[in-house]
Amino acid sequence: MKMKKSFASDNWSGTCPEIMTALADANKGHAEAYGELDDVFTARAKQKFIENFGEDIDVFFVYNGTAANVLGVSHLINSYHAIVAARSAHLNEDECGAPEKFIGCKLLELESTDGKIQVRQIKPLLKSIGFQHHAQPKVISISQVTEMGTVYSIDEIKELADFAHSNSMFLHVDGARIANAAVSLNADFKSMITDTGVDVLSFGGTKNGLMFGEAVVFLNKGLAVDFEYRRKQGMQLHSKMRFIAAQFERYLTDDLWRENASRANLLAKHLEEEMNKIPQLEVSQDVNANGVFVYLPEAIIEKVREKYFFHVWNESPQGKDGMKEVRLMCSWDTTKDDVAGLGNEIKEALGNC
Amino acid sequence: MKMKKSFASDNWSGTCPEIMTALADANKGHAEAYGELDDVFTARAKQKFIENFGEDIDVFFVYNGTAANVLGVSHLINSYHAIVAARSAHLNEDECGAPEKFIGCKLLELESTDGKIQVRQIKPLLKSIGFQHHAQPKVISISQVTEMGTVYSIDEIKELADFAHSNSMFLHVDGARIANAAVSLNADFKSMITDTGVDVLSFGGTKNGLMFGEAVVFLNKGLAVDFEYRRKQGMQLHSKMRFIAAQFERYLTDDLWRENASRANLLAKHLEEEMNKIPQLEVSQDVNANGVFVYLPEAIIEKVREKYFFHVWNESPQGKDGMKEVRLMCSWDTTKDDVAGLGNEIKEALGNC
Amino acid sequence: MKMKKSFASDNWSGTCPEIMTALADANKGHAEAYGELDDVFTARAKQKFIENFGEDIDVFFVYNGTAANVLGVSHLINSYHAIVAARSAHLNEDECGAPEKFIGCKLLELESTDGKIQVRQIKPLLKSIGFQHHAQPKVISISQVTEMGTVYSIDEIKELADFAHSNSMFLHVDGARIANAAVSLNADFKSMITDTGVDVLSFGGTKNGLMFGEAVVFLNKGLAVDFEYRRKQGMQLHSKMRFIAAQFERYLTDDLWRENASRANLLAKHLEEEMNKIPQLEVSQDVNANGVFVYLPEAIIEKVREKYFFHVWNESPQGKDGMKEVRLMCSWDTTKDDVAGLGNEIKEALGNC
Amino acid sequence: MKMKKSFASDNWSGTCPEIMTALADANKGHAEAYGELDDVFTARAKQKFIENFGEDIDVFFVYNGTAANVLGVSHLINSYHAIVAARSAHLNEDECGAPEKFIGCKLLELESTDGKIQVRQIKPLLKSIGFQHHAQPKVISISQVTEMGTVYSIDEIKELADFAHSNSMFLHVDGARIANAAVSLNADFKSMITDTGVDVLSFGGTKNGLMFGEAVVFLNKGLAVDFEYRRKQGMQLHSKMRFIAAQFERYLTDDLWRENASRANLLAKHLEEEMNKIPQLEVSQDVNANGVFVYLPEAIIEKVREKYFFHVWNESPQGKDGMKEVRLMCSWDTTKDDVAGLGNEIKEALGNC
Repeated sequence: MKMKKSFASDNWSGTCPEIMTALADANKGHAEAYGELDDVFTARAKQKFIENFGEDIDVFFVYNGTAANVLGVSHLINSYHAIVAARSAHLNEDECGAPEKFIGCKLLELESTDGKIQVRQIKPLLKSIGFQHHAQPKVISISQVTEMGTVYSIDEIKELADFAHSNSMFLHVDGARIANAAVSLNADFKSMITDTGVDVLSFGGTKNGLMFGEAVVFLNKGLAVDFEYRRKQGMQLHSKMRFIAAQFERYLTDDLWRENASRANLLAKHLEEEMNKIPQLEVSQDVNANGVFVYLPEAIIEKVREKYFFHVWNESPQGKDGMKEVRLMCSWDTTKDDVAGLGNEIKEALGNC
Repeated sequence: MKMKKSFASDNWSGTCPEIMTALADANKGHAEAYGELDDVFTARAKQKFIENFGEDIDVFFVYNGTAANVLGVSHLINSYHAIVAARSAHLNEDECGAPEKFIGCKLLELESTDGKIQVRQIKPLLKSIGFQHHAQPKVISISQVTEMGTVYSIDEIKELADFAHSNSMFLHVDGARIANAAVSLNADFKSMITDTGVDVLSFGGTKNGLMFGEAVVFLNKGLAVDFEYRRKQGMQLHSKMRFIAAQFERYLTDDLWRENASRANLLAKHLEEEMNKIPQLEVSQDVNANGVFVYLPEAIIEKVREKYFFHVWNESPQGKDGMKEVRLMCSWDTTKDDVAGLGNEIKEALGNC
Repeated sequence: MKMKKSFASDNWSGTCPEIMTALADANKGHAEAYGELDDVFTARAKQKFIENFGEDIDVFFVYNGTAANVLGVSHLINSYHAIVAARSAHLNEDECGAPEKFIGCKLLELESTDGKIQVRQIKPLLKSIGFQHHAQPKVISISQVTEMGTVYSIDEIKELADFAHSNSMFLHVDGARIANAAVSLNADFKSMITDTGVDVLSFGGTKNGLMFGEAVVFLNKGLAVDFEYRRKQGMQLHSKMRFIAAQFERYLTDDLWRENASRANLLAKHLEEEMNKIPQLEVSQDVNANGVFVYLPEAIIEKVREKYFFHVWNESPQGKDGMKEVRLMCSWDTTKDDVAGLGNEIKEALGNC
Repeated sequence: MKMKKSFASDNWSGTCPEIMTALADANKGHAEAYGELDDVFTARAKQKFIENFGEDIDVFFVYNGTAANVLGVSHLINSYHAIVAARSAHLNEDECGAPEKFIGCKLLELESTDGKIQVRQIKPLLKSIGFQHHAQPKVISISQVTEMGTVYSIDEIKELADFAHSNSMFLHVDGARIANAAVSLNADFKSMITDTGVDVLSFGGTKNGLMFGEAVVFLNKGLAVDFEYRRKQGMQLHSKMRFIAAQFERYLTDDLWRENASRANLLAKHLEEEMNKIPQLEVSQDVNANGVFVYLPEAIIEKVREKYFFHVWNESPQGKDGMKEVRLMCSWDTTKDDVAGLGNEIKEALGNC
């Protein structure tokens, strides 16, 4: 039974104690199902989002990030539109074709080594606009934090939003690790998301201490009209809604989100330092948030994984013979001891090579 | 804040204490995400299903009943097929078109006053088979318990399954209240579902004490091949899978499901008796499980609902002038006091008319 | 080889000579593909539609009626909406689930013996509006001529359009036999369609002398924005567009549509008279256009069909023991001799009974 | 009015005279609609396909190539599968997202300069197989002739088919220009398609003299089961089916397809020679069939297009400053005079630079 810590993903960790308490507190008596009118948990959680993102927003709870991404984008576009995203974007590579299935649209992939996409990469795609044989680019989707552990600056987000809007497009943010990004930028959600011009955000928490649930946040109420029907048809309306709402209410209270994400980010920095101390390794991406990408000698990977599991991200990185690029994720519950343990395990394995 | 008991639906109740404990117990250390290989919670929960349904089954956890119904049926048919169901079936009326959207198929509705459908109603639909202009009937979907609180007998299920199979069709069971049905029939799941020939079952628990999660049970492993991809593309793969698995493991241990459902069914019987004592009322459907349908004088409905909320099911039942048909649902946490309180409230309201 | 006349359907007939000539005339040199900018055939055909329907319309050519219906309606609604139609509507019964597949929406069927639907039948469906569990009624779709050979009056269409608009809904007309309806009402297209408030029309011609092709006519340009992408994605953009356009240009020139439809309607009236002369038969629907529905003794059907094929519409009409309701369609090429021949065949078969 | 010859595309040409005659011949009396049982035209056309492809095939007529590609592939896979194709494949780039919409699946693009894809490019994609987060590669789709005017050899097709089958995948061929490929390889259809192991073929004719219509050919009857429903639901069932069938019957009689394609291919060779004579130009792709790709000085393009229209394929080919790569398509009706005229126009424009 694998119950020990791993660096595989921040969703291998459990639910943080504050959220467990919030769930227990919400579990009293009856509450109106489906988050409808009289469900106070949902009302209070929505109010927390308004406090964090501004008055003109609307927010809907769904079960997971796949759904938040797909349904959120779906509400902005038609099937003959296209989504522009990094090849490595979760929406593109890791949803088993959910956007194609549910939206019926094409994804236009952009190459990116650090997980970020640039306006200059998107511009050439605009030549398809008005050409009836091509899917019409309509949404730019970015991940904040990216799949490579990097974080867009506020200016970079603003530039993408401005470009989108000046071309009648929208900007979507996959915020599975949005808390880690906010901590990284030392920014609040409003300045990073609302004020930069993002149109719709998938606000995740499961990778930062929640048990389940994700929020679709429209940063402009007008875009959210009728979304309740899309959610229901999208098979994402929870009957006992209070158990998602209560998690988000607590998550956005007393900076719990920030506390959890800060710990994860801090440990990632610590881990980066540990890795940098080992001469045979090389950190391969900027460590902006809670993920550390490292070139690791192929020979030691299986050995180290026996104790601390992690995923190989790139089987054969260019110019790094004998190395693989691996991803080491820190979570809200990662400790200094875990990091030290991993460092020792690697050093020992290297010594035995 | 509406925290008091209601008879609105069995999903207005919370999570039963045993499940809360199971969630807390599962919340230790790390577990492999997505229920993949090394996640012991998922492995143990699947084992429980095998114990209850037989060796040749396969089971997949999803978030809710809409998804279990839609994805389960989707895996059996093509978009040019049709689903045969009662007009009142949740799959037909209450999923905001999710089957049409996700499967792309037509639903063929059958009229039913008690929520059950009969082989003789399905036979005329077979004339479409082989006619290229018509969607091809391929799945019969029934609800056990039905939306009208009635329960199919084992023989009735078997008859539908035999008819389906002898016409190259499948039988799906929406088991949002499957525990209440098993208690009602004093049957185990295997004899009611596996042995009658059901092909795929949506096994619900949220209406009987779980917090979230539903299981898609294929009663024949061969039908389940590749379902993991459909679930993921269907936006229903939970990352922290252990928190669904642990609930189902506990639910199927020590007869927890039976205990909860027995209480709800018993209280419904008790409620039926109470209603029968009031001469101005009339129970409108057989009380087989945990729902009681009653013709109630229109004049008192709003007054009673202020204290004990419930839903009106039929605004103008034929031949019942001045009455509406209302639905009163009992849950795992309904008490004799709740029933007595509702009875008193009704009597008082009638006295004031 | 069945080359002789039948009364099976108006699409068993061929292409009328004027259209054959138009096709030959269009087959000179090169023309820009896909109806794009410089294709003069498409430009001229569109102009004909403007002359017939008014300035504020837009028109797109597709291949057939299924596509015109599905794509036209698709452009007005989202997948969580519902289409309201007669159970007998082609869109509902005879497209093998194409609307469900392509739009992903639910169809709400209304019973109708004459093929028409009434505002009073639609009103009860409005109670679903705003209820997130139900597909939201958004389009009323009628067939003009209906599948039962009846024709809506201009006032009836206007009433439906007004009702639709006052409830934020749209009115779609399946005009597979729109020419026959216009002849029946002695109306032009503008007064029957544009001026009554129809939002989108499937303008058919294949049942009235064309070889292939159908037109989606938006009666309000604003509704048509981006339809070119939906058509292309809907697999309905013809490369050699001129061959659809040239047919429609000719069809709308010198009243060809009216001439063909008048002949078909006239022969249907003639056929009705013939049928009425035979005492054992009974005409079962008003003969408004080019279809005649008749209760025919079951015993003679196979015999008569050997010579003049037709379809049985209702296998067991209520209160008509020993009879079936059959449909007899007249086409642009039906002659008095055909009608007399059928009458004789029936009389002879009856004599031999 | 642009009626003069162009080199824009082989679908700018009209219908060849033999096909016009066949259409007129088919336009006699009545024929059963939808290609159903008694329609002799459809029966005879199917027989022609059997003669050309072998006994174990099945064939269905649809309206165009988009539909043949999308519906044919759709019948082989589920929505959670992926299609592997060249980035430049029509299916990927030029259907406005039709595969994503109708199949709901992902397309995995491979880079290719000559339009062909290689087994070695596909192999790395297989690592996704069995990983539930990724769409599962299931169909390899190639174009024969490719979009770059090149033609796969019989061995290359066989290699792809063998690779597909040994990995539980299928091979689809987009044969919009299949006749030109057969002429290029001096092969018959059976040896190029059936015997190499292709699973489904989109058999086009519109680019080679037909007016409309395309055939979906399953090279294995077992794969075709139920395809009639998919076609109907896919909005591709023509009512007056005889007018597609009669074209294909004639097309496959007396080598009409070969005659037309030979002329187009021959003229392309002739055009290649002309282009090679002009020193400022450079032919950029192998001329295997009826398309010639040329690097043309940017400065003369607009001038030449005024007289002979063509499309620019690559706005800024690498290493070819001041040049654009243009596509010149020959058709069944292209003449030596057309080629000479284009050559002169280019030379004159170059002289004026």
